[in-house]
Amino acid sequence: MRVLGVDPGLTRCGVGVVEGSVGRPLTMVDVGVVRTPADLDIALRLHRLEEGLEAAVLKHRPDVVAVERVFSQHNVRTVMGTAQASAVAMLVAARHGIAVHLHTPSEVKAAVTGSGRADKAQVAAMVVRLLRLSAAPKPVDATDALALAICHVWRGGAQNRLLQAMEAAR
Amino acid sequence: MRVLGVDPGLTRCGVGVVEGSVGRPLTMVDVGVVRTPADLDIALRLHRLEEGLEAAVLKHRPDVVAVERVFSQHNVRTVMGTAQASAVAMLVAARHGIAVHLHTPSEVKAAVTGSGRADKAQVAAMVVRLLRLSAAPKPVDATDALALAICHVWRGGAQNRLLQAMEAAR
Repeated sequence: MRVLGVDPGLTRCGVGVVEGSVGRPLTMVDVGVVRTPADLDIALRLHRLEEGLEAAVLKHRPDVVAVERVFSQHNVRTVMGTAQASAVAMLVAARHGIAVHLHTPSEVKAAVTGSGRADKAQVAAMVVRLLRLSAAPKPVDATDALALAICHVWRGGAQNRLLQAMEAAR
Repeated sequence: MRVLGVDPGLTRCGVGVVEGSVGRPLTMVDVGVVRTPADLDIALRLHRLEEGLEAAVLKHRPDVVAVERVFSQHNVRTVMGTAQASAVAMLVAARHGIAVHLHTPSEVKAAVTGSGRADKAQVAAMVVRLLRLSAAPKPVDATDALALAICHVWRGGAQNRLLQAMEAAR
């Protein structure tokens, strides 16, 4: 399964592509960020982001796009931009017929480190170890996107097996 | 000037097209809502909304798309959907090279009724009068989209004249 993880953001949107399946070693296919200038009109920023994400989807043809589920507990201004960036990611995937799955930050932390309360450094250390990298990709949005993709390979894999078992039992 | 107003929403997204200029009678070109089913995946809802808004933009070729500026004071769940729907509207406009302008709810009320604290009924009554309609379009999202478009014709027109005057004074 090839998963494109998206850590949504307007200024920096993390994109990480991971290939793997439950119980097998994971491979990093690509990682990066799509940046848009803060002084650009919001509509043009969303369009730039769309172009960047579209290019990643066309290049890597993922089976699934995994996006961080946005909550609004945090800073109100940031959340609006994050919600809008995540909308662009979901839209690009849907337009290409690619399944979209959302994972909360604590689901990602739990999947990657074993603890839903892990800090950024612990998540980064596990991403480095699981993908056998020499260092965590910078900026942190890139590493977070890889963590999302890893989370989906494992959680999505478990969900798929459950669905298949339920189908078989009918 | 032809303005396509968008009252953003995932369940009902109001779309209203108004033609006019400052000091001349306004004309309603079209009005309606794009609906997406609440039980559909969020990614697919955003894609349906994109298709609906894209169709409206291609049909009416507006000079400007005016979108309600989303705030997060209100209900947290609703705001996320509204932010995402507004992102889709801005994206569709930007992709077609159409300028996007945002107006706050109180700017719209002030422009249409003269008071930033007007209620829904007052706004609807003024939309009916200004566009010489027999009744306010239903649902209210449709009327609100027309109010946004009217607001932009007047405010945008004033802004443009100011910019032209500043250019001329250089």
